[in-house]
Amino acid sequence: MIDRARLEAQFAHMRGISAPGEGGPGIYRLAFTDADWQGRTYLMRLMQEAGLALREDAFGNVIGRMEGTDPALPVVLFGSHADSVPGGGNFDGVLGILAAIETARSLNEDGFRPEHPLEVVLFLCEESSRFGAATLGSRAMLGELTVEEAHRYRDKDGISLYKAMTARGLEPEALGKPLHPGPVKAFFEVHIEQGKVLEHEGKEIGLVTGIAAPTRFRVRLTGSADHSGATPMALRHDAACAAAEIVLAAEVLAQAENDPPAVATVGMLQIEPGVMNVIPGTATLGVDIRSIDDDVKARVAKRLQRRVREIGERRGVAVDIEPISDERPVAISPKVLDFLEEIARESGCSYRRMPSGAGHDAMHWAERVPAGMLFIPCKDGLSHNPNESAKMEDILTVTRLLEKAVRRASRKDTRLE
Amino acid sequence: MIDRARLEAQFAHMRGISAPGEGGPGIYRLAFTDADWQGRTYLMRLMQEAGLALREDAFGNVIGRMEGTDPALPVVLFGSHADSVPGGGNFDGVLGILAAIETARSLNEDGFRPEHPLEVVLFLCEESSRFGAATLGSRAMLGELTVEEAHRYRDKDGISLYKAMTARGLEPEALGKPLHPGPVKAFFEVHIEQGKVLEHEGKEIGLVTGIAAPTRFRVRLTGSADHSGATPMALRHDAACAAAEIVLAAEVLAQAENDPPAVATVGMLQIEPGVMNVIPGTATLGVDIRSIDDDVKARVAKRLQRRVREIGERRGVAVDIEPISDERPVAISPKVLDFLEEIARESGCSYRRMPSGAGHDAMHWAERVPAGMLFIPCKDGLSHNPNESAKMEDILTVTRLLEKAVRRASRKDTRLE
Repeated sequence: MIDRARLEAQFAHMRGISAPGEGGPGIYRLAFTDADWQGRTYLMRLMQEAGLALREDAFGNVIGRMEGTDPALPVVLFGSHADSVPGGGNFDGVLGILAAIETARSLNEDGFRPEHPLEVVLFLCEESSRFGAATLGSRAMLGELTVEEAHRYRDKDGISLYKAMTARGLEPEALGKPLHPGPVKAFFEVHIEQGKVLEHEGKEIGLVTGIAAPTRFRVRLTGSADHSGATPMALRHDAACAAAEIVLAAEVLAQAENDPPAVATVGMLQIEPGVMNVIPGTATLGVDIRSIDDDVKARVAKRLQRRVREIGERRGVAVDIEPISDERPVAISPKVLDFLEEIARESGCSYRRMPSGAGHDAMHWAERVPAGMLFIPCKDGLSHNPNESAKMEDILTVTRLLEKAVRRASRKDTRLE
Repeated sequence: MIDRARLEAQFAHMRGISAPGEGGPGIYRLAFTDADWQGRTYLMRLMQEAGLALREDAFGNVIGRMEGTDPALPVVLFGSHADSVPGGGNFDGVLGILAAIETARSLNEDGFRPEHPLEVVLFLCEESSRFGAATLGSRAMLGELTVEEAHRYRDKDGISLYKAMTARGLEPEALGKPLHPGPVKAFFEVHIEQGKVLEHEGKEIGLVTGIAAPTRFRVRLTGSADHSGATPMALRHDAACAAAEIVLAAEVLAQAENDPPAVATVGMLQIEPGVMNVIPGTATLGVDIRSIDDDVKARVAKRLQRRVREIGERRGVAVDIEPISDERPVAISPKVLDFLEEIARESGCSYRRMPSGAGHDAMHWAERVPAGMLFIPCKDGLSHNPNESAKMEDILTVTRLLEKAVRRASRKDTRLE
């Protein structure tokens, strides 16, 4: 049975594992650091206590296995990560791995014997904070992270991922090939929403319909940095005014998409020279567009880039658009969604289907195997923040749903493809 | 007679006077620095060569006097400054002081005997670059700069104006009382436009109708820094979107004023946290509004502040408006304008009446005595910039106009009040 007191103690313990002397509140458990390794060691102990057989792969991902009655059957995989952003909270990732371990422990205590083998997985290096790239553990496990990338990705002190791995006794040279033997029957991950939708609607559970990978581009505007007092309005080429039109165009174009929705954000905006008495001569904007539908996302991006060029031409401001990334959104299979919805309905909790705007380890699995994600609300939508918070009631609800999902998926007669 | 070769040599000499090792192109002649003092020494020598009797006041302003046939008559004062911004050009200020010295020298060479005494003035510390406040020489001369301010104004190394003055053997304790004995019959200053209007319209001379001191305020916007992927458009409180609306509102409200015109600029705009995957939670804008008409300027400021509050309320973004400055524009007396226009018309040059968007020493004098300013075009409107440039033809034209204006104003029968 899912044990509230045990989970509470585990969350409390994880909250204490953070690099000291980093200054500022929140958790500092950046990938491959001592604090991260301390968390990993603690979670490995919990997996052992849950009766799982441990192994680790060349990247350092940890797998705890409960053997199936037929060990040759595809594995039911579930878990999440435990690294944090600098000054992060105690639920992003942690919820997913603790819920997974508690699920395995509960099943084990119940004497449950799965037909398919079960594997709890702790992914390393999910956050991009240290090496500038996210979900590296999943990518490594699927053979999509190369040795060359391990050399190239560096932290702010210039330490490469390759070196950080070597320092932990891991094997970067093994990258580029799948580290998990497969096959995998299903992958499940639970996570805090990192947004306000569930809280706003008073729902306990979000059934993730897709994961909205971003299209990102940078816009550089070059106008004319003239004297702000001596230049009449009609003779200006104000890069900040052009930037302002772009910010609002991004908002309007995203608002126009409803089925499925899109979001567009100008999260980066710098103007130069940035003083009171000079008209901004240049502006740089970072645009982030997301939708779980690739066509919708592409339409917003295309329309916005057309508007950027129109605005530049009309204002005599030169425009340079530089693509940064264009990732494909990942859809969750309707079959997995229906499977999870049935479990949610049976349990009597309140729920809604919703996209995930943030990226997760699950997105890499969803491209290959039946995969599903369950969200719970987080207070004020805050995440990547010391004030990140989730209610224990919601944590228990989602852990019970995960246990049911794993229990049912572990049966040979449950078809998820 | 105004001597082209002499002026050319003097501009060339001034270009060479700059602090070494400052890095970056352009002129570094910040107030009271060695380079500034070197320029001042050179200009004092030119004044002596022009036959002027030199004196300096407690602030370090230099006055070169040509005695009038009636020494008791009010003085005709003309000049400008020679300090620069960091990385400045060779014409801002320099044009005005060299034109003034050349005027005096030409009159002297012609054997001209003025009825009113003439005084060429080199104002110190016109630029705000070193101590954060502009036109300090004029303010000191008029008794408007206090000892307390001299203690308070500090440069980036923490050196106070008081200390900088003392190090030059000047007398900060004499501040707060007028340093010029007066009375003054008229003040004239020539300057580059620091804008594009004359160049755009192909005019040689601008007759300044007024000096448009700025109203400045800071707007702080506090929205909600949510996840850019996980927050639907309808649940956002995006401080950058609110800021964008304000930038465009400032533009539209200034464009609506034509008689006389106004300008409004958001030259400072910072958003936080400024990363791709977080909706901007806060934004800070610096707004600068100018017109030569105080009512017009006040109307734009009031309307914009009302719009800021509307935008904040509609978007659920908290608004804080902090006044920075609200200086009164200075009108040029119609009599002085007509006087200068007549001289321009007689000389056959092309001219237009126009406001000065930038502040100048002349604005302090125009509040007290008949004062006028003449502008010439500068290339591409550039100023406070290493590429600041003016044509020698225009420099000669405006110096000849200044000479005529001084010559005529020095007669007892020329009434300017």
